[in-house]
Amino acid sequence: MTELKGLWAASVTPLQPDLAPDPTRLASHIEWLFQNGCHGVVLFGTTGEANSFSVSERRALLDELASNGTEMSRVVVGTGLCAVPDSVELTKHAVSLGCAGVLMLPPFYYKVVTEDGLFAAISNTIEQSKSDDLRVVLYHFPRMSGTGYSVPLIQRLKTAYPDILAGIKDSSGDTDNLTRYCREIDDLAVFAGSEALLPYALEEGGVGCVSATANLTSRLVREVYDGDKPAADKMIRTRKALEALPMVPMLKHILATESGDEAWNRVRPPLIELTTASQARLGEIVDTVGTLPNFKNLIA
Amino acid sequence: MTELKGLWAASVTPLQPDLAPDPTRLASHIEWLFQNGCHGVVLFGTTGEANSFSVSERRALLDELASNGTEMSRVVVGTGLCAVPDSVELTKHAVSLGCAGVLMLPPFYYKVVTEDGLFAAISNTIEQSKSDDLRVVLYHFPRMSGTGYSVPLIQRLKTAYPDILAGIKDSSGDTDNLTRYCREIDDLAVFAGSEALLPYALEEGGVGCVSATANLTSRLVREVYDGDKPAADKMIRTRKALEALPMVPMLKHILATESGDEAWNRVRPPLIELTTASQARLGEIVDTVGTLPNFKNLIA
Repeated sequence: MTELKGLWAASVTPLQPDLAPDPTRLASHIEWLFQNGCHGVVLFGTTGEANSFSVSERRALLDELASNGTEMSRVVVGTGLCAVPDSVELTKHAVSLGCAGVLMLPPFYYKVVTEDGLFAAISNTIEQSKSDDLRVVLYHFPRMSGTGYSVPLIQRLKTAYPDILAGIKDSSGDTDNLTRYCREIDDLAVFAGSEALLPYALEEGGVGCVSATANLTSRLVREVYDGDKPAADKMIRTRKALEALPMVPMLKHILATESGDEAWNRVRPPLIELTTASQARLGEIVDTVGTLPNFKNLIA
Repeated sequence: MTELKGLWAASVTPLQPDLAPDPTRLASHIEWLFQNGCHGVVLFGTTGEANSFSVSERRALLDELASNGTEMSRVVVGTGLCAVPDSVELTKHAVSLGCAGVLMLPPFYYKVVTEDGLFAAISNTIEQSKSDDLRVVLYHFPRMSGTGYSVPLIQRLKTAYPDILAGIKDSSGDTDNLTRYCREIDDLAVFAGSEALLPYALEEGGVGCVSATANLTSRLVREVYDGDKPAADKMIRTRKALEALPMVPMLKHILATESGDEAWNRVRPPLIELTTASQARLGEIVDTVGTLPNFKNLIA
């Protein structure tokens, strides 16, 4: 299995005119990310609009990628849903395709839940999809999911599933939390939730980052990961500047503009395409951060 | 179709030993609610642990109820999920079974969304499940879903779908918001999200309430709805007291205790059964509010 470390892009999901996922464009994009510095890609994360697709749409898209030659051993798939049976179905499916791992949100509807309740949800999911080939990366994003993974909860899960529980993506943006994950839990691959905290994570003992912006800036992030300290400043400045805009529509808009392929702009509701006002704001941002390394021009 | 007004209990969902939904116990419970003051029941709301079940589990449970004689014309079904295709599938299914309506959460994963995005999600769902028999009750519960229905958004939906957009359940607990819904949108059945605000809602022009506690207190709530003003104080005191405990496990615990049927205690993760500490706290609460009208004893 591909080692869970380094730069993993949280890929966007291109869409067809009827808003169905577009396997052809996605396969090309994944290949492009592989060739431009990514150790792997995460599909169906927050950036991939995971929860806007049904379970069967998610399965079908992965099946198409696998049968058309995408290196699934370099793919981690988001499989954490509100209903345990859905998480089990997607997790088993990802394992059956030889994926490097699954990225698991906690159930995210109920907001006041106990550690026991979250442990039961995750352990039930693991028990029902158990396999020697299963590697779980927990997905800690409390701002979006309302709940999250505390250190004691992760320790319980690690004790119960020492080989399966492989890592965590920390999208809290909280450096203290990232440090606790790195220092207080043995043998856990800790990924920063964006490249903004990649240098910090590497210093604390983390293994890399899972990054949305890397859909655009993978080469730059990879340089930083590989030890180019001067590049870190530009990387962090670019990330912070782009955070002023809605992430998914902004990424897709830039991919559309740079590729000349308008189809890239499509998003699923409740997201909307980048508004004219945001496009103007993007122009201002580009003036401050300069071009991105993967592109001739950041926007046309 | 059953008129969308009055007292609708947000039913709990009883479970089998493997945590699959239990159609037999649920059918009995619904019948009991119908016979004890409820104009109708809402299935698969927050109290019904809706989002802890897969789409196919939800469909199968409703099919079993329908084929075993439950009066589906007095049932409203929660059908609002994060993915439009799932919401469409459940909505069409509810219509096909002759349900009184569907209760629609907005997509609840993304937390920073626009009015345009929410309008697109709901209108796409309605367009794809359109029927003369479809009645949509919006489900406003921002504390749980992270987003909600603003007055301008509801007005846009009402203009687009004047007959289909039938009502709203306001679980914000915010009286100002409830008043705005009642006064600023024509021809919309406004339900208070619990009986605590039932008297207030009726005074403002609302039509009733959808209540979790009514799984236990339906007769009392119905008396208040029918005009028994002195009963309102006891009803509100009871509701407020019970809110100190986790609602779903508490309701199920009381149903288990009163019926002598332990099976009622089961919940799906991430919820957990009522803890011993909470059971003790429940005893204290009972001492302050007295017995509930539907039961000989509130707890054994």
